[in-house]
Amino acid sequence: MAGGSGTRFWPRSRRRLPKQLLPVLGRRSLLQETVERLLPIVPRGQILIVTHRDHAAAVRRQLPTLPARNVLSEPVARNTAPCLALAALTIESRAPGATFVSLPADHAIADAAAFRATLLEALAWAAAEPVAVTIGIRPTAPETGYGYIEVGPRLAGRTARVRAFVEKPTAARARKFVTAGRHLWNSGMFAWRTSTILTLLDRHLPAVTRPMRAALAKPIRQRPAALARAYRRLPSISIDYGVMEHARDVLVVAGDFGWSDVGSWAALAAIARDTGDRARIVPVDAARSVVFADGRLVALVGVDDVIVVDTPDALLVCHRDRTQDVRRVVDELARRGLTTYL
Amino acid sequence: MAGGSGTRFWPRSRRRLPKQLLPVLGRRSLLQETVERLLPIVPRGQILIVTHRDHAAAVRRQLPTLPARNVLSEPVARNTAPCLALAALTIESRAPGATFVSLPADHAIADAAAFRATLLEALAWAAAEPVAVTIGIRPTAPETGYGYIEVGPRLAGRTARVRAFVEKPTAARARKFVTAGRHLWNSGMFAWRTSTILTLLDRHLPAVTRPMRAALAKPIRQRPAALARAYRRLPSISIDYGVMEHARDVLVVAGDFGWSDVGSWAALAAIARDTGDRARIVPVDAARSVVFADGRLVALVGVDDVIVVDTPDALLVCHRDRTQDVRRVVDELARRGLTTYL
Repeated sequence: MAGGSGTRFWPRSRRRLPKQLLPVLGRRSLLQETVERLLPIVPRGQILIVTHRDHAAAVRRQLPTLPARNVLSEPVARNTAPCLALAALTIESRAPGATFVSLPADHAIADAAAFRATLLEALAWAAAEPVAVTIGIRPTAPETGYGYIEVGPRLAGRTARVRAFVEKPTAARARKFVTAGRHLWNSGMFAWRTSTILTLLDRHLPAVTRPMRAALAKPIRQRPAALARAYRRLPSISIDYGVMEHARDVLVVAGDFGWSDVGSWAALAAIARDTGDRARIVPVDAARSVVFADGRLVALVGVDDVIVVDTPDALLVCHRDRTQDVRRVVDELARRGLTTYL
Repeated sequence: MAGGSGTRFWPRSRRRLPKQLLPVLGRRSLLQETVERLLPIVPRGQILIVTHRDHAAAVRRQLPTLPARNVLSEPVARNTAPCLALAALTIESRAPGATFVSLPADHAIADAAAFRATLLEALAWAAAEPVAVTIGIRPTAPETGYGYIEVGPRLAGRTARVRAFVEKPTAARARKFVTAGRHLWNSGMFAWRTSTILTLLDRHLPAVTRPMRAALAKPIRQRPAALARAYRRLPSISIDYGVMEHARDVLVVAGDFGWSDVGSWAALAAIARDTGDRARIVPVDAARSVVFADGRLVALVGVDDVIVVDTPDALLVCHRDRTQDVRRVVDELARRGLTTYL
């Protein structure tokens, strides 16, 4: 799932270059790292990318060894439920009865081997049972920006039944979750058979699957236009709200592999050191401040807890606790008509 | 006096482009504004600039209508006492018995007409009496970064006798000065006859005037080399410490013309709004923060009391209360050998 338009990483991310296509953690983009991480257990030909039409060309450029037809374009962004419907219907048409994992393309994972072991455990359960298997992350802090999964009866290995999906909690509740140890972070990663997810979607979101099935049933030359027309009328809804919170009988595999959704500059700062040439960063009494720069010299004097993001045409100076408000800058730029910076 | 090397306005000021040569408050440099401000009362031919040899060419370029010989070069920076000795000896050789004012070239003055009226009052006293006449600034805040002048018996107009020169006070003492109303800021501006200042220098700083007089007595072709040799051995000392604090019988004219020594980015921020294209500055909850930018877009989110200075090759993010420490960045750059940024 590489559909994000990501305003939270402005000014590094732009409309044409959303977060998943950015090399935020090294030389490779998050998307490239996500694919790379899977290669020891998934053949290239079986990796599908769903992205916005505007980014399909960039995705193909970044992944030149993937078959071009494995990059699926959405004509309009409609959140994860339509994205997964399109993926499941496409996979089902190419490999009936397949089991697959769906992964966000813009997450960071420190321990790729542990991640793959978790995925294989989830895939095994999904292949064996007609249920959705989600991957939960053992919380390392009382995060209020994530949804949580309440863990039910243990099955085997690191797998258990899901008791409930819990929306983003208050800070106090998140602290209880962490100390009690019965909750995991909802990572948005799932394993399921195509028939499992399609049954769930047909039951809970027929407004998504019915027009999409109809569009994909058209002759191949009419399909893109039909899909575009269908997408415009689809609800924009996440798989979590639209399906998972209503689904009985969901399994969860507990993962512990240094996961981050890299959801903001602050999240990135927490896992990355300053990027760029450290010889060109001069901090003078700048505790907990982080610089993301592309080569210009950046000096900080007496400013704690600040994140500086320097790009050729735009500069962001943001308090670490306020990176969620970077989108307000993007909104303001749009309001002023400064589209070159969007 | 345009001799400053100014590291406090890094990254805008550099070795080759010190503060007085920078257009910090508009399109013209502080030096150009200082000269412009005098033109209604001083003919161009009678305005002399003393600057460091490295900056003489830039000074002449900025002031093309001044006679080239009115730009005096110092081979080494030695603070204000040697600078004023060179100026006084040069003026005395060209116009014996002249009265002159000596002014820093890097101050900002809001009310030029009031400033000129104050200068004329000081010049009248200096021409009439063989005493130094300084200009004191009525304090508007308990500044601890300035020297103060304790005012003695009133003479006439805005002129009084100086009771004492007071070094930079503590905050508590500065507050007393402001409320009691008997102290003025020491602006570093003076009026005097050449004979007056030379008598004072000969008495208190013969180590300055004796070698300088000897060098200037050489035939004209040997003079630059002789002056360079002499300067290397001169003490580096200010006119305030070297002369004024020992001088009896100094007068002060109280001035009230919106003065600032523009001594730091914070001082500049206090008198200037953001510079550059305000359409390209996007503050989101950034109280009392000021941006000095050259055209790039600058966005601030949740950072109060910050000064951002953006230049093509270097960026400074500095707390308003810490602008005195900008020199530590310059020191660190020198230590790292990053001379292109100096």
